[in-house]
Amino acid sequence: MRLSRYFMPTLKEDPKEAQIVSHRLMLRAGMIQQSSAGIYSWLPLGQKVLKNIEQIVREEQNKAGALEILMPTIQPSELWQESGRYDDYGKEMLRITDRHDREMLYGPTNEEQVTDIFRSHVKSYKDLPLNLYHIQWKFRDEVRPRFGIMRGREFLMKDAYSFDMDYEGAKIAYNRMFVAYLKTYARLGLKAIPLRADTGPIGGDLSHEFIILADTGESEVFYHKDILDLETPEDKDHNPEELQAIVDKWTSFYAAADEMHDADACDVAEGDLISRRGIEVGHIFHFGDKYSKAMGATVTGPDGKEVIVSMGSYGIGVSRLIGGIIEACHDENGIIWPESVAPFKVGLINLKSGDDACDAACEDFYGKLQSAGVDVLYDDTSDRAGGKFAKMDLIGLPWQVTIGPRGLKSGVVEIKNRASGEKEEMSPETALQKMVG
Amino acid sequence: MRLSRYFMPTLKEDPKEAQIVSHRLMLRAGMIQQSSAGIYSWLPLGQKVLKNIEQIVREEQNKAGALEILMPTIQPSELWQESGRYDDYGKEMLRITDRHDREMLYGPTNEEQVTDIFRSHVKSYKDLPLNLYHIQWKFRDEVRPRFGIMRGREFLMKDAYSFDMDYEGAKIAYNRMFVAYLKTYARLGLKAIPLRADTGPIGGDLSHEFIILADTGESEVFYHKDILDLETPEDKDHNPEELQAIVDKWTSFYAAADEMHDADACDVAEGDLISRRGIEVGHIFHFGDKYSKAMGATVTGPDGKEVIVSMGSYGIGVSRLIGGIIEACHDENGIIWPESVAPFKVGLINLKSGDDACDAACEDFYGKLQSAGVDVLYDDTSDRAGGKFAKMDLIGLPWQVTIGPRGLKSGVVEIKNRASGEKEEMSPETALQKMVG
Repeated sequence: MRLSRYFMPTLKEDPKEAQIVSHRLMLRAGMIQQSSAGIYSWLPLGQKVLKNIEQIVREEQNKAGALEILMPTIQPSELWQESGRYDDYGKEMLRITDRHDREMLYGPTNEEQVTDIFRSHVKSYKDLPLNLYHIQWKFRDEVRPRFGIMRGREFLMKDAYSFDMDYEGAKIAYNRMFVAYLKTYARLGLKAIPLRADTGPIGGDLSHEFIILADTGESEVFYHKDILDLETPEDKDHNPEELQAIVDKWTSFYAAADEMHDADACDVAEGDLISRRGIEVGHIFHFGDKYSKAMGATVTGPDGKEVIVSMGSYGIGVSRLIGGIIEACHDENGIIWPESVAPFKVGLINLKSGDDACDAACEDFYGKLQSAGVDVLYDDTSDRAGGKFAKMDLIGLPWQVTIGPRGLKSGVVEIKNRASGEKEEMSPETALQKMVG
Repeated sequence: MRLSRYFMPTLKEDPKEAQIVSHRLMLRAGMIQQSSAGIYSWLPLGQKVLKNIEQIVREEQNKAGALEILMPTIQPSELWQESGRYDDYGKEMLRITDRHDREMLYGPTNEEQVTDIFRSHVKSYKDLPLNLYHIQWKFRDEVRPRFGIMRGREFLMKDAYSFDMDYEGAKIAYNRMFVAYLKTYARLGLKAIPLRADTGPIGGDLSHEFIILADTGESEVFYHKDILDLETPEDKDHNPEELQAIVDKWTSFYAAADEMHDADACDVAEGDLISRRGIEVGHIFHFGDKYSKAMGATVTGPDGKEVIVSMGSYGIGVSRLIGGIIEACHDENGIIWPESVAPFKVGLINLKSGDDACDAACEDFYGKLQSAGVDVLYDDTSDRAGGKFAKMDLIGLPWQVTIGPRGLKSGVVEIKNRASGEKEEMSPETALQKMVG
């Protein structure tokens, strides 16, 4: 993509309305624009990152055997009356009356809707286990939306729902998602820590939040330092025993959020216990028959008897993750994208647009990167060099390639790694190989 | 994908609520489920087709230089008050009051919102031309939603918006979208006819609907028979002159919808004029300064003077297209997907699941197709052969490969082309080559 033909309205100054770094950097990089309180439009750069994250989340859900569906944003109130949540949910639910005075709502989550799909079609234990997920916009009418897309009102979420015959089956489904989440975060370039979470009135031991560490995190977390050294599970199909072993290993280390941490009860040696700020980027939850019982989601078991299915739900805030990644990955100059989610892999800087040799060398390099399938943003504008460097640092592409008149005379271009800041001069051919490889 | 692990709740009987064939077949194939009037959940098979169509639309928009953004579904009423449409729009607009009593709406379209993005950032003629599009869910509160997803309330639409300095620039943008639409429909396996459409109170000659022919179409169209023989524009970047030539060629043939057709004024020879039913699958429209003037979207021209930008909008109903394709592509046994949008390319039928030789041959074939990157649905269930054939015909995958005990004895499998119905026996190796190639 040529920057001259792109729409990336960067800002030089920090916008006043942004209190946290991810919000500030997203506005400055021209990734988003506020539409109304807590509701944003995604401009081209932001939209690309959103799609990249969505695709990684999707692939890992598919690998874990979850099936993608797509439920609508607007739901009928009747389903929520069946579960009892229509009255319980309060003002965070955006309630709508349609032209025929029917009560509808903009879904804040989809337990009722997916249970309705399940009970309409699934009748036998032979069709289990089943895990259905979708990646869809949700709406929660926060009293005070803030922190940009981190606590917005309209947000993109992946939510999966598992259906099993019994607790034992549900536990396998739960473990499968637990492991899929570890793989997902690793692919996003993040180190996520699972924290045992409060299961609320339903009880049980199957609820975990996943948090990533960031100095600007919303809550304090306490964890055994060795949990950060655990290896990401292998990229393969795990059987139930392997899944359990992975979950056991990850949960054998102490890790708790502020509200669950009890300094007196914690048996981690003082030097091993770390306390840092964290951002929640996922939540998985086994809730048993809460919805299946209320809504009559049953299957016939092998013995011919009706069984109420055991359910779990598994959420990842896709749009929120962008803020989380920026909070975890930035410096004073801007964003530092992990390569897997970066909007472009390479930023190509023409130090002297209009100079025949520079233009020719840049066009050649640009064309070759594109032919090799490398996603590149080419700054072909006539802006000053300083402005071009600052902009590339701000938008945080993993690699910068700078081509200027002086370098060309000695036959070299400069490549810079955004994360490490390391710069190196090399021939265009070598640089190309490095960017493609 | 193994059918035994898939969620594809097909129906044997025609559902009573479906009046038209696409609605009937989508329900019968387990592609969708109604959530409330005119609002549907997309089950795995439907979701896959939706994504396939969305991706083709996206690729052709990107090739035409349009930039993808993503605007939210919920918009503030203020923008629509600026354009004057908040009061004009009537009951089709889903109006919402949030918890702070602010008036919001679920966007039926996005002219105001995109104009707001434009005016916030674009100040100079140097940043033009610009075309921003998104693929997002819309809501129109139809009085009587019907025909399944063909006239639903919540629907997925691609809408692009072009911004230019003047009419001449806008015309190039318009032609570029006209040509992109021809390419898009061709890739979807459809023959679309552009009809000059009513431009309403704004006037001008730049408005076309694109329709596809189907006996069940909603309106009657009249066209010169030779328009169906026109070749799809080449897959390349066209310059403005080439674009104009393509548009001129396609619009040189008579083509008009019922309400625009005037038998007396039509100069097509009787034998050349065809009348058939059609389904609208796209609409492009130049509307000049209607929104830019009302909302103050201006740029500074080369001479330093402020210019109100000239705009156009370009819509394709992505979810509606699925219905349109089925209306155009089906027979008495079910859907016949064009290969580009089919949920799977191949349906693999195991004629005798449980038979060791059949199972082994099917597993081998299935594994090899997957390794070759061919998307395949493998019916590994213990259903009867007749039921398996009927199901594969119903869901309309382009190719069926049947492996049974009798064939295996003579070393052959059967392949069937769903569209032509032709069946052929061949060795598994030859069949594999044919499916991969």
